Amino acid sequence: MFDGIKRPTLVVDTAKVRRNAVRMMERAKRNGVRFRPHLKTHQSRIIGRLFRDLGVRTGTVSSVEMARLFADDGWNDLTIAFPANLREIPEMDELAGRIRLGLLADNPVTVRALSEGLRHPVELWIKIDVGSRRCGIEAGDQAGLRAVSEAVRESPNLRLAGVLTHDSRTYGVRGEEAVGRLFREGRDALLSAKAFLASEGWKDLLASFGDTPSMSLLEDWSGLDEVRPGNFAYYDLQQYVAGSCSPGDIAAAVACPVVGVYPRRGEAVVYGGAVHLSKQSQAMPDGGTSYGAVFEMRNGAWEGFREGAGVRGITQEHGIVRMRPEDLEALRLGDLLFLCPVHSCLAADLLRPNTVYL
Amino acid sequence: MFDGIKRPTLVVDTAKVRRNAVRMMERAKRNGVRFRPHLKTHQSRIIGRLFRDLGVRTGTVSSVEMARLFADDGWNDLTIAFPANLREIPEMDELAGRIRLGLLADNPVTVRALSEGLRHPVELWIKIDVGSRRCGIEAGDQAGLRAVSEAVRESPNLRLAGVLTHDSRTYGVRGEEAVGRLFREGRDALLSAKAFLASEGWKDLLASFGDTPSMSLLEDWSGLDEVRPGNFAYYDLQQYVAGSCSPGDIAAAVACPVVGVYPRRGEAVVYGGAVHLSKQSQAMPDGGTSYGAVFEMRNGAWEGFREGAGVRGITQEHGIVRMRPEDLEALRLGDLLFLCPVHSCLAADLLRPNTVYL
Repeated sequence: MFDGIKRPTLVVDTAKVRRNAVRMMERAKRNGVRFRPHLKTHQSRIIGRLFRDLGVRTGTVSSVEMARLFADDGWNDLTIAFPANLREIPEMDELAGRIRLGLLADNPVTVRALSEGLRHPVELWIKIDVGSRRCGIEAGDQAGLRAVSEAVRESPNLRLAGVLTHDSRTYGVRGEEAVGRLFREGRDALLSAKAFLASEGWKDLLASFGDTPSMSLLEDWSGLDEVRPGNFAYYDLQQYVAGSCSPGDIAAAVACPVVGVYPRRGEAVVYGGAVHLSKQSQAMPDGGTSYGAVFEMRNGAWEGFREGAGVRGITQEHGIVRMRPEDLEALRLGDLLFLCPVHSCLAADLLRPNTVYL
Repeated sequence: MFDGIKRPTLVVDTAKVRRNAVRMMERAKRNGVRFRPHLKTHQSRIIGRLFRDLGVRTGTVSSVEMARLFADDGWNDLTIAFPANLREIPEMDELAGRIRLGLLADNPVTVRALSEGLRHPVELWIKIDVGSRRCGIEAGDQAGLRAVSEAVRESPNLRLAGVLTHDSRTYGVRGEEAVGRLFREGRDALLSAKAFLASEGWKDLLASFGDTPSMSLLEDWSGLDEVRPGNFAYYDLQQYVAGSCSPGDIAAAVACPVVGVYPRRGEAVVYGGAVHLSKQSQAMPDGGTSYGAVFEMRNGAWEGFREGAGVRGITQEHGIVRMRPEDLEALRLGDLLFLCPVHSCLAADLLRPNTVYL
């Protein structure tokens, strides 16, 4: 069934994507929270349509280009969850003319530039930093919150939708307890910003939160109005190590032709490198560093990882794979190994021209 | 001059590329060695033509796809310096029908599969492992060398061109002395494989060697017949740290719009992340880890790095940049920062759709 694969190829198991999506949607429904999945994980119209067929109408993207990709395919309610780039105001305006568009700002300069440059109305989210130290106003910075919200008030074409955060700290810990502690801290910080803005006269603001570890590991999302996880569509080795998924939940594999077998070193080399899987590495529980796991294949499908195997190194086009002697002995040049990427969002981005859907 | 840049964009200074190319070509000429630059660094027809205009007629690529890209643009003598992928034999055969094509093998199974599958003649290089432990026959493995060379002897459409290696160990050390020691060790190992094959009756084999640190730092390449450096066309932060180049030699920068300024943290955030620069990091001499340096710009050109600045973290679309307070104060949202990528080959691959040439 994989005879046509000649080069490193992303293989997506759509049944698993659907199962992951349904599980997340049902949890959102139980929590009474709007589900606005991040579409950057897959950047795929096919997976986007799978979500729409399940009833999802609201999506998140991380660039103007990506918003255009999905808007052109029928999505009409998208948030660009990336600080509004002042060099793309005309492109944002074009989008705002045809879909309901959400934008992010964390400072009054951006708000005023949007207000001047956009002719169509948009929803404005104030980006809050609850601890990641990437973008956003620190949740307790009331002067900052006031400055940006006042700038929105003076902008007739901007409607303040709410406060929004992404807490990337949860990607660095393991398990429900550690993730739960960070989640509650981040959520409470976000809600404190919302409460401050309410005290400033802003009514009906929403609190939007999003990260796959929290949304996967925790059942209770109370206090939130909207969630934006993305990676859960495919999951990956990073999420497995964080405890967010089982190997059987991982819906994307990178099929790589075997181009070298070195039994003396206990290694094989595949056609599949940094330009296919990305250079992202993962600290493993055993203390090692991995660039990917190897799936055990049964009847053309994967459920678990192959014992004693892993990608120990990666260069531009090569992946160097440790394997047990008995597995190396059975391996033939030209066989495919199915790798579990460390970070499926990056592999999916790199392999957009080479993706097959099961 | 950069007003048209809206998104992360690779900016290539072709005058620097030409200077880097001329320097390397002249050194090859002084050493009496054939120059077969690796084209994977740029994957660019424009830079390929720049090399051809300087008189270069022989090139190296790392995939069949890349061979096709350059063959379609007039290159007619290319080596695919990646182990021959048995799933792409028809594609290699098509190429061999129209250009002089070199392929790599390190085992008799691959050689026999090529012999059976190719209708057009190719040059076969035996890939030697001189210490990198990626691909190749270990230089001292005489049984392995005999097995693969005998398989070539039985293949009428394969001509044994020589022995070939790439010693990636030089990328992990710093300075002329350390690189020189590894170079001589690797070259001598390669030449011992060539000498063994000569004793087996193979005459006129060539020794092909290639890595940018050795070729940049060392004047004397004696013993070699062909060199295949690639990264020297652009250089990057990794090569700067290795001592292979000065900041002024670096010919590629990634222009990134500023989307956040956070003076309290001493940081800015740019639109420019792992899908633009790659996730490759660099251990810096000061003990830190960098995802890129920041160029100082003067009159639309860069020569050196900005003091006290660097990319401290990177996510899918964001780059987090440390900067001095006075530089942050002068920075405006929407400005461009010009970053020096850690590994220009990966950034160039990611930014192929967004590249401008000065």
